[in-house]
Amino acid sequence: MTPHALTATAALAAMKAGRLSPLELAESCLARAAEREPVVQAFAHLDPDQVLAQARALPAQGSGALHGIPVAFKDIIDTADMPTRYGSPIHAENQPRRDASVVALTRAAEGIVFGKAVTAEFANRRPGPTTNPHDPTRTPGGSSSGSAAAVGAGIVPFALGTQTSASVIRPASYCGVHGFKASWGEISYAGVQLTSASNDAIGFYARSLADIDLLRTVLTRTPSVGLSPGNVGSPRIGLCRTPFAEQAESYVHALLGDAATACTNAGASVADCILPGAYAQLADAHRWVSSYEGARSLAYEAIFHRDRLSPDILQGRIRDGEACSAELYRSSARFAEACRIEMDAILGDYDAVLCPAAASEAPVGLSFTGNAIFSTFWTILHVPGVSLPGAKGPNGMPVGLQLVGRRGSDRRLLEVAAWVERAVFG
Amino acid sequence: MTPHALTATAALAAMKAGRLSPLELAESCLARAAEREPVVQAFAHLDPDQVLAQARALPAQGSGALHGIPVAFKDIIDTADMPTRYGSPIHAENQPRRDASVVALTRAAEGIVFGKAVTAEFANRRPGPTTNPHDPTRTPGGSSSGSAAAVGAGIVPFALGTQTSASVIRPASYCGVHGFKASWGEISYAGVQLTSASNDAIGFYARSLADIDLLRTVLTRTPSVGLSPGNVGSPRIGLCRTPFAEQAESYVHALLGDAATACTNAGASVADCILPGAYAQLADAHRWVSSYEGARSLAYEAIFHRDRLSPDILQGRIRDGEACSAELYRSSARFAEACRIEMDAILGDYDAVLCPAAASEAPVGLSFTGNAIFSTFWTILHVPGVSLPGAKGPNGMPVGLQLVGRRGSDRRLLEVAAWVERAVFG
Repeated sequence: MTPHALTATAALAAMKAGRLSPLELAESCLARAAEREPVVQAFAHLDPDQVLAQARALPAQGSGALHGIPVAFKDIIDTADMPTRYGSPIHAENQPRRDASVVALTRAAEGIVFGKAVTAEFANRRPGPTTNPHDPTRTPGGSSSGSAAAVGAGIVPFALGTQTSASVIRPASYCGVHGFKASWGEISYAGVQLTSASNDAIGFYARSLADIDLLRTVLTRTPSVGLSPGNVGSPRIGLCRTPFAEQAESYVHALLGDAATACTNAGASVADCILPGAYAQLADAHRWVSSYEGARSLAYEAIFHRDRLSPDILQGRIRDGEACSAELYRSSARFAEACRIEMDAILGDYDAVLCPAAASEAPVGLSFTGNAIFSTFWTILHVPGVSLPGAKGPNGMPVGLQLVGRRGSDRRLLEVAAWVERAVFG
Repeated sequence: MTPHALTATAALAAMKAGRLSPLELAESCLARAAEREPVVQAFAHLDPDQVLAQARALPAQGSGALHGIPVAFKDIIDTADMPTRYGSPIHAENQPRRDASVVALTRAAEGIVFGKAVTAEFANRRPGPTTNPHDPTRTPGGSSSGSAAAVGAGIVPFALGTQTSASVIRPASYCGVHGFKASWGEISYAGVQLTSASNDAIGFYARSLADIDLLRTVLTRTPSVGLSPGNVGSPRIGLCRTPFAEQAESYVHALLGDAATACTNAGASVADCILPGAYAQLADAHRWVSSYEGARSLAYEAIFHRDRLSPDILQGRIRDGEACSAELYRSSARFAEACRIEMDAILGDYDAVLCPAAASEAPVGLSFTGNAIFSTFWTILHVPGVSLPGAKGPNGMPVGLQLVGRRGSDRRLLEVAAWVERAVFG
């Protein structure tokens, strides 16, 4: 396997064994980028000299948890040595003077900041030029479009994203990569464009669950103990089609059913996880909380550069947020908070809950990043989520399988997800 | 009264009547700054030419809600035309390219961005040079030191701050100004240095409750309906000495008792608000949540510029945050969340709750910003708070009277506070 296609874990092992150097890995990733970028267009900023300089500055072997591993960052995440444009022409010249927390932690672990990945405008809806790495006529999803596509195209083993609505899990599903959205609050948002303080969470893409756990420990500054799916035993798996089940294509439900059967066959106890009917209102709660906060977070742009905002964001989040009353905002936020606490108890009955990662395969066309509901619902509940690749839809495009867990159970969720992955995909 | 000493409301009325222009007000505030700054040192950046240029660009009369009103901003709040240094030598050269949301909203209302007010290092403990406007041998409190002192010294009618622990209400008490801390989430933190996503909230200083309500409506983008304390009727006032009562000086408790008596005499029903004993644990919960999140938010500085961080922050928040386990962080966050919801019910029995704003008068010395407990306790509960000036301690220094209300009841709290202010201070 060429270096660019290795998991981070495998690349680190190869470096430890003296079979691969940071420079060789960087050169391989850059060669892959040169090959795929003309079509995929995952990067808003990619300077091979910057990548090679970082790789050359590292010894062939090192002690950092990400020694020599290239990591891409969504272009709403500040980098002290690369521009950060938020997917907007308003900030075409923006060069931050400091790294976001997640960038600094990556560098401290000897990871390589590979480049800035295309984001939808202010991590909202208006997409950049990125195409789906499996079919350039289809969307990669958004808003962490470039991050998902960069991993899906085999350019980098890791790419950071953010999720206020569906911005990590949906692109993971569409691009056929492992995607992870951390519990709200677990990974610092410092140095990242704020949209909705009540919803915003860091997430990222990788090639394996072990890789996700590795990066998670680096970004949370917590000890790495690894994943041991063999120790999971007979997990209790919930099957949750959500209150929005009818919005997912039948093949999504069929794949979910197949996955549940495979889990049962492998020894899990699988039970339907039926949520209170009122939870259907979480879609509206998410809409009002995220737009009330989002319109205010974008006050500078909405006031002084309104003519350079897209109709998508002006007629969407900003219009919604400017129309939403303070009372509706507060009642929506309180409702979500009550659901979160209730959800701790509901999810306490399961080791993980299987649910759709997206409503369908990636839609054809680049102007629409897809139906967000199967992530927004979980985002406002603050739970961690992971999307497993491996399944295909009727057009041969990837369809992700989402697992969610209790708030704060991020490591445990990944371990159970590793058990499920083995049961479903072998 | 000279223009610099006017409330914003009075200055706006004078401008409307043609008796004052934005330029005259700006010149008066600058003259006051020239007089007081050598001792008070409230500003990290103050360029008279920038202030005058903004004032000259405005017509004598205008429709903006803050037409011609000077507003200072704590130096962790990004400004597109003034440096933002976070109180740290690490960022001595930092010039943001965009305004924070609160700055943009101020400009949109035709307010004048007067300058950047001194902040403790990264809004934590290490103070800047600012002195208390009532006694230069004493601390102004922190971390919004310069903001409180600038209003207290009569330089500006408004100054923005932030509160992660006690950073707005404590300086308000020490400097003898009106201080307001908004409910968590009500005013966008976009473009403000993130410390603790679970605690950080915007606050500000002013010269009257009417002024506070005016600025609050601008920063929340909500309709201004004004305060009508005459309509409050017979308010239900709670008297809450908090689980940390023994940390406040006896004169603070005496002033609180006097205020309660005055409220009773004016027609309020006053009752002790006794909180569950477990609430004493909120001090530790605040410590672990704010430091776990804070240490990670400062990852860039803690990793790459550690030698230029002060011992205060290294041995305080960063050490705490690096020592705190993920489990302790999560259990602390969950406990606080449960208290918040319970507190909605407890505070539902009162129109406002009287409590200490600080443990004492401003301590002598500039190296310690004072005991934080009487704010941290409320900060993690996400409730709005207001500090009323007017009382004095044994050394003739100001002692604030704090009122808190239910989450999201910010406007109602200010209205009841106006009733209390009239009852207590006449």
